[in-house]
Amino acid sequence: MFYPFKQLEWTHISKTEPADTAMSPKITGDLLRQLRQAMKNCKYFAEPIQAYIIPSGDAHQSEYIAPCDCRREFICGFNGSAGTAIVTEQYAAMWTDGRYFLQATQQMDNNWTLMKMGLKETPSQEDWLITVLPENSKVGVDPWIYAADQWKNMSTALTSAGHSLVAVQENLIDAVWTNRPKRPSTQLRTLGLEYTGVSWQDKITALRAKMTERKLSWFVATALDEIAWLFNLRGADIEYNPVFFAYTVVGMNTIRLFIDPNRLSDPALRDHLQLDSPSKPELSIQTFPYELVSSELQAICAALGPKDKMWICDKASCALTQVIPKSHRSPIPYTPLCLAKAVKNATEIQGMKMAHIKDAVALCELFAWLEKEIPKGTVTEISAADKAEEFRSQQKDFVGLSFPTISSVGPNGAIIHYRPLPETNRTLTENEVYLIDSGAQYVDGTTDVTRTVHFGTPSAFEKECFTYVLKGHIAVSAAVFPNGTKGHLLDSFARAALWESGLDYLHGTGHGVGCFLNVHEGPCGISYKTFADEPLEAGMIVSDEPGYYEDGSFGIRLENVVLVVPTKPKYNYRNRGSLTFEPLTLVPIQVKMMDTELLTQKERDWVNDYHRKCREVVGAELERQGRKEALEWLIRESQPIV
Amino acid sequence: MFYPFKQLEWTHISKTEPADTAMSPKITGDLLRQLRQAMKNCKYFAEPIQAYIIPSGDAHQSEYIAPCDCRREFICGFNGSAGTAIVTEQYAAMWTDGRYFLQATQQMDNNWTLMKMGLKETPSQEDWLITVLPENSKVGVDPWIYAADQWKNMSTALTSAGHSLVAVQENLIDAVWTNRPKRPSTQLRTLGLEYTGVSWQDKITALRAKMTERKLSWFVATALDEIAWLFNLRGADIEYNPVFFAYTVVGMNTIRLFIDPNRLSDPALRDHLQLDSPSKPELSIQTFPYELVSSELQAICAALGPKDKMWICDKASCALTQVIPKSHRSPIPYTPLCLAKAVKNATEIQGMKMAHIKDAVALCELFAWLEKEIPKGTVTEISAADKAEEFRSQQKDFVGLSFPTISSVGPNGAIIHYRPLPETNRTLTENEVYLIDSGAQYVDGTTDVTRTVHFGTPSAFEKECFTYVLKGHIAVSAAVFPNGTKGHLLDSFARAALWESGLDYLHGTGHGVGCFLNVHEGPCGISYKTFADEPLEAGMIVSDEPGYYEDGSFGIRLENVVLVVPTKPKYNYRNRGSLTFEPLTLVPIQVKMMDTELLTQKERDWVNDYHRKCREVVGAELERQGRKEALEWLIRESQPIV
Repeated sequence: MFYPFKQLEWTHISKTEPADTAMSPKITGDLLRQLRQAMKNCKYFAEPIQAYIIPSGDAHQSEYIAPCDCRREFICGFNGSAGTAIVTEQYAAMWTDGRYFLQATQQMDNNWTLMKMGLKETPSQEDWLITVLPENSKVGVDPWIYAADQWKNMSTALTSAGHSLVAVQENLIDAVWTNRPKRPSTQLRTLGLEYTGVSWQDKITALRAKMTERKLSWFVATALDEIAWLFNLRGADIEYNPVFFAYTVVGMNTIRLFIDPNRLSDPALRDHLQLDSPSKPELSIQTFPYELVSSELQAICAALGPKDKMWICDKASCALTQVIPKSHRSPIPYTPLCLAKAVKNATEIQGMKMAHIKDAVALCELFAWLEKEIPKGTVTEISAADKAEEFRSQQKDFVGLSFPTISSVGPNGAIIHYRPLPETNRTLTENEVYLIDSGAQYVDGTTDVTRTVHFGTPSAFEKECFTYVLKGHIAVSAAVFPNGTKGHLLDSFARAALWESGLDYLHGTGHGVGCFLNVHEGPCGISYKTFADEPLEAGMIVSDEPGYYEDGSFGIRLENVVLVVPTKPKYNYRNRGSLTFEPLTLVPIQVKMMDTELLTQKERDWVNDYHRKCREVVGAELERQGRKEALEWLIRESQPIV
Repeated sequence: MFYPFKQLEWTHISKTEPADTAMSPKITGDLLRQLRQAMKNCKYFAEPIQAYIIPSGDAHQSEYIAPCDCRREFICGFNGSAGTAIVTEQYAAMWTDGRYFLQATQQMDNNWTLMKMGLKETPSQEDWLITVLPENSKVGVDPWIYAADQWKNMSTALTSAGHSLVAVQENLIDAVWTNRPKRPSTQLRTLGLEYTGVSWQDKITALRAKMTERKLSWFVATALDEIAWLFNLRGADIEYNPVFFAYTVVGMNTIRLFIDPNRLSDPALRDHLQLDSPSKPELSIQTFPYELVSSELQAICAALGPKDKMWICDKASCALTQVIPKSHRSPIPYTPLCLAKAVKNATEIQGMKMAHIKDAVALCELFAWLEKEIPKGTVTEISAADKAEEFRSQQKDFVGLSFPTISSVGPNGAIIHYRPLPETNRTLTENEVYLIDSGAQYVDGTTDVTRTVHFGTPSAFEKECFTYVLKGHIAVSAAVFPNGTKGHLLDSFARAALWESGLDYLHGTGHGVGCFLNVHEGPCGISYKTFADEPLEAGMIVSDEPGYYEDGSFGIRLENVVLVVPTKPKYNYRNRGSLTFEPLTLVPIQVKMMDTELLTQKERDWVNDYHRKCREVVGAELERQGRKEALEWLIRESQPIV
């Protein structure tokens, strides 16, 4: 994926891709012929191009994409989350990373060369192009799905070798893709103050205050979750992510929303956005068709004063970025909306808490059910995942899953990005570790929880590893740290116990979580990879999910979603104030998997406090819902350890 | 200082500046008049300049500078380590940070405006220049003491406002500085294999191998410690740093050394460098006067082939960097010499160990002496520091101090960059905490150690804080971490105990230490500020120095120099191997300052193991040297705690 900090943070815990499985390759000979014809077709450009780059991703830097945007998959057959295809007159090559070597080999036919990223002998895209292209070649790319910084790097490399990178406005894959799915345009859901806490009008006002503070006269929003958050709207255009395709440009006195006009006929929506009777002129929303963002932005730029500056995220598409003249462009790593969205208000926090209680109810039910059913030998990874979804769907305001459930038994658990498929589906037994990483979208909040359990007797090594992971989880969750601390400074706390025994895990420890929005959001996170993350602030919500993966044997991960809260330790150095975390996830952690001898008294106290809270809070809700078996399971599983 | 990562890492523990003391300002009216005349004098440039920038620092990015390079101090009177002066036709302004506001106010007369960096209302140098300059102005700077990246930023800002930045080849301060000290040219010391482990010839060969690996044909060395390390030579041109002024340009078949020719008459030196009879033609060193580096580099560049690339550090001076045409320039954050120098070989490690044993002998003597003398009321911060130097100077191969001793009593200890002056000198008593941070250069190694002690009865709060600092020190020193871990990932371990009680310290935890070289060296360190540090490797040597500072009351710091060593924990995940630290500093940590109740059993074991090693290793040396009182002190201070 091309959103750099996402790539850094979540590369190893991406949850969208199927596991390596036996599958037949896509036959691409005809398609490639058509694409190469399009590359020579002067309908699209003044001169033919000698190479065409097909990145993953959409025009909004989305982590998850809609079917109409799966162009790289369409052209080569490989459907992993990360990969870039390049087609020249003679060659077709696809770059992906180590997670996908096997899958890509299976999904691509022999028209394609797999470029194994991370291996020393594999050339970069730039170097490969320079090697294979005839002199003075033109390389095309759709600037809408290529980020401004990607463009700059590629263009510099090609230019220095005598070639050039050209923006091809019409996407050539779309040109050869018959039956390409339409861009989704699902019904929009309006969220009232009882869910959002702040009206979209107040969010606009706050945004403009930030713009004034930074002396900026315009702001261009391209990230879908930021636009959904700003207008207190949700859609279903992309699976798992309650967002909708749109752009927004906000000036000091004007708001322009670019969106499929067909969506605007709904009276509730018109009312919510005050389209017909704006309360104030500066809060009047002008709507434009989605496709007009570029021309309208051009018109805005043409009328800019010499000192007018426009804010745009530096990961926005090259196409939109370049519409803004450089002298008026003020690129930022995170937009003010991204920052504002990350700090949840009291209403959102309350909603997230409610969502997590409901989610815990569903998981207690699942585990109680699994305990009963597993001995029958009929439960599989897929049926367990389905059952989890079924239980969740019974909860109030359930909308859907927040990502595809990772339900994995034994060795499948060691494949970090595993997703069960019929070909890989294992049966849950009393002999193997079971890892389930799952979450849901409720109208009041988003959940993401991982539990690792054993339904028989775990081995001493499994328990030992689980306990180190638990120690790491607690070390982060219970950490006290000064205001202004960045999340990456906490990452090593999660690893210290594993490191001491020579173990580790190769993914970050935590990511931001949206409120009825994307399960992965910036700008904060907890990772050994330092990126330009923002300091943690009270009200931010992140995951705490260390793990350990023993290849070919088992996987362990322990994930709670936690809220950053103020705390008052004994002293208060320089009046900076301190922060810690409060777990929102309230699902018991299996004591059977712990080697409690390895825990310190402090750690045992933490486990007991946590379990008491699970029992009290989730127990009350289970009681209210009359879910007796799950309640019994909860009470049994939350007994104090001594 | 302009060496960015140094600035990040050591801003708060810089040891070169005096404390804020009452001093009279320098009278600068005449000087400024002369400088402004020079700014209009066409002897120096085609057109007059409207502003002149006077940075701190020399042409080699040195942390410590020679008197002839103290130009900013000369023009404005302020002698702190960090600050930039800018003089226009009407104004004179000097930017420095919060450590120096008081000192700068006292040292500068009212011709100068103090620009308090870090305050919101203080404009940046660029913004200030743009505000005060008439249209279309020229701003001059000496490109030899301005780094390439500084130039780029300043130039871009000025150009976008219609001004321009111009390189003034002759330094205008030097032009008005009568009696400017000469550039030092001290006698050079040659180091044999018994100290260096590797001949300079083998270091050149290894450098060329790296150049071949990266396809580079030339390397330009500008950092003085890298040049000293490369040629196994030491000088005394800069106080505390055993370096000498020189440049080096290494090609695949040629070595050019730019150095004061007067230094080359010493037969031992000529022999060491094989100046008269090189063993192989490619190891023949051509010497040139120091001043010719620019013209000679120009000549080399003129003869470059189209694919030839030159390595130069991106912190090198603008002047030298710009001699290399951009297409031939390959800037790097750390040079291969910096990386090679950081990983000490077996001989260097052995030397560092010996140096630390001798240094411990001197400190045991100091503490034994202090215990006897303090009750008399005659020991001051200055006399204690002098005594420490006296004891060190009695040790074999002592060369000098490695930085000015920080010897501080009570509230002075809370001034992190304190250095005792007659005006601030406090008497050591049995009522206040005493902090001494000191180190020396021996021919076999460099030391840097901080101990905090009380000669009476420390308060409960002092003990509590000391114990948190000790816990942090141990957490780093005993940490086990995988190969490939960067030092900044360990920083939070040093703070966790302080954080838990709401405390912290505002400096990094550790810096690299040279071997009979600079006490601060890159590229590795342990800091909350993440910079492009390199992973820790076995053989690297860093300091481990958490602290706590209670303003107006006391300061605590606990510093050992530690060696990165391989270790074998129970498991070995993905065969990555693990590392930990071995303390080289072997001076007892005062048990009286510890609240041992707050220590875990593991921490108590660490203290006891450490003290046993001090007793065994340093005790043997004290015995050998017949230093009986110090030995008694050591034995008493290294008793196990229970």
